[in-house]
Amino acid sequence: MSGGVRSGEPRNVRVVLEYDGSGFEGFQRQTSARTVQGELEACLKRITGQAVNVAGAGRTDAGVHASGQVANFSLGVGIPTNRLARAMNRSLPPDIVVRTAEDVPADFHARYSARSRVYEYTILNTPVPDALRWRFVWHVAEALDLDGMRSAARAFAGRHDFSAFGTPEPGRSPIRDVSGVELVSDGSTVRCRIEANAFLRHMARGMVGALYETGIGRRGCDAISRALREGGARPSFVVAPPGGLCLVSVRY
Amino acid sequence: MSGGVRSGEPRNVRVVLEYDGSGFEGFQRQTSARTVQGELEACLKRITGQAVNVAGAGRTDAGVHASGQVANFSLGVGIPTNRLARAMNRSLPPDIVVRTAEDVPADFHARYSARSRVYEYTILNTPVPDALRWRFVWHVAEALDLDGMRSAARAFAGRHDFSAFGTPEPGRSPIRDVSGVELVSDGSTVRCRIEANAFLRHMARGMVGALYETGIGRRGCDAISRALREGGARPSFVVAPPGGLCLVSVRY
Repeated sequence: MSGGVRSGEPRNVRVVLEYDGSGFEGFQRQTSARTVQGELEACLKRITGQAVNVAGAGRTDAGVHASGQVANFSLGVGIPTNRLARAMNRSLPPDIVVRTAEDVPADFHARYSARSRVYEYTILNTPVPDALRWRFVWHVAEALDLDGMRSAARAFAGRHDFSAFGTPEPGRSPIRDVSGVELVSDGSTVRCRIEANAFLRHMARGMVGALYETGIGRRGCDAISRALREGGARPSFVVAPPGGLCLVSVRY
Repeated sequence: MSGGVRSGEPRNVRVVLEYDGSGFEGFQRQTSARTVQGELEACLKRITGQAVNVAGAGRTDAGVHASGQVANFSLGVGIPTNRLARAMNRSLPPDIVVRTAEDVPADFHARYSARSRVYEYTILNTPVPDALRWRFVWHVAEALDLDGMRSAARAFAGRHDFSAFGTPEPGRSPIRDVSGVELVSDGSTVRCRIEANAFLRHMARGMVGALYETGIGRRGCDAISRALREGGARPSFVVAPPGGLCLVSVRY
């Protein structure tokens, strides 16, 4: 290791992460499954000799990707921060990359300090699927009414009970603030960008599933606003598959 | 199966295939490994009830992708050809897609009728790797002398003994005709497009490895022309890893 290991004050380090989620059972550490957190902690153990606890901003599900996940951890001794990303990338498997690493104030916490998360969902809307992108898109062969989807998407904006679109943690609030849902199409690929202060479990995929059902005409434009108004249990909207989803950035 | 199965004259069917090679031990059928040919034949057996033998234009190695592989097979009875691609795509795993299927003359053979194959190799030439494209690129962090590589690449054009770059089949000629090697860069991604009448085993990857060694200054510009002139055993050029390689088209 060219960076070497040296003693130093404890530092709070923030990293920006990119990963291909198709080989992981999600971000969060599990005893007997391959996870992003598990790989990061094993890597930090290898290169610093320390047991390090990594906190991530978003608990992405199995199969969900990230281009801008944020995590932080405390390093007591070890590699200088300016050499850390390179040292980690040498030791990590190829499906996780540390884009940047920097020292941040001690009170920074990737999850609790986050003001919002931005997810992007990619629908491939072509007659024939794409074998080279199958891990990263949801292939939808049916024609999609994009104007109808955009109109329906506007209902999501604001503070609502999202129980119909995701699963709240037991005893926790199902209320979330969605600051925007943006749909962009180039004719074959439809990208849906969703920003919210936080997301319930499966919420981004439930929102995209509801938009898809609007787009193919299975639900009217008011189905989403009614589900938001009424709250309560999920009314069997389709949940879009995980591979199309990517955590693109976290705002602080 | 909405297409149904009907009797009919034997047809020779040509398909254009796309696949993500990272989950396959190459194209060619093997007894106990997952291969593209094996999946295609199992799919045709499921949807036609017949044992079908599939011939591919290029025997791509484990981990090598295709966006324009060509294959052909004979169908005695079964689904009309205009419904075949859709029926196969419903039954195939997501990492293989049939782009098109058409009837061709009985004497067409995907391998023996081919006049040339075009491969494209992608080098990601950035300081930091890319976790979302890791299956599809070779990450090279060192600076590459593109002009030097282009100049060296010109030596490949023409008819040569390629033993130094690939492995001839025992008792078969190591001579191949390369019609062109083109290097295109957008600053971070270097694409190397190689067309030849046929390729020895590992030849495309050996050629890219030699260009890489020229690009980082480990070999002079004349190393390639000398190896082509002298033929003989491989002089330990680097063999570029399989994930960067994609069979993009076959010409007839």
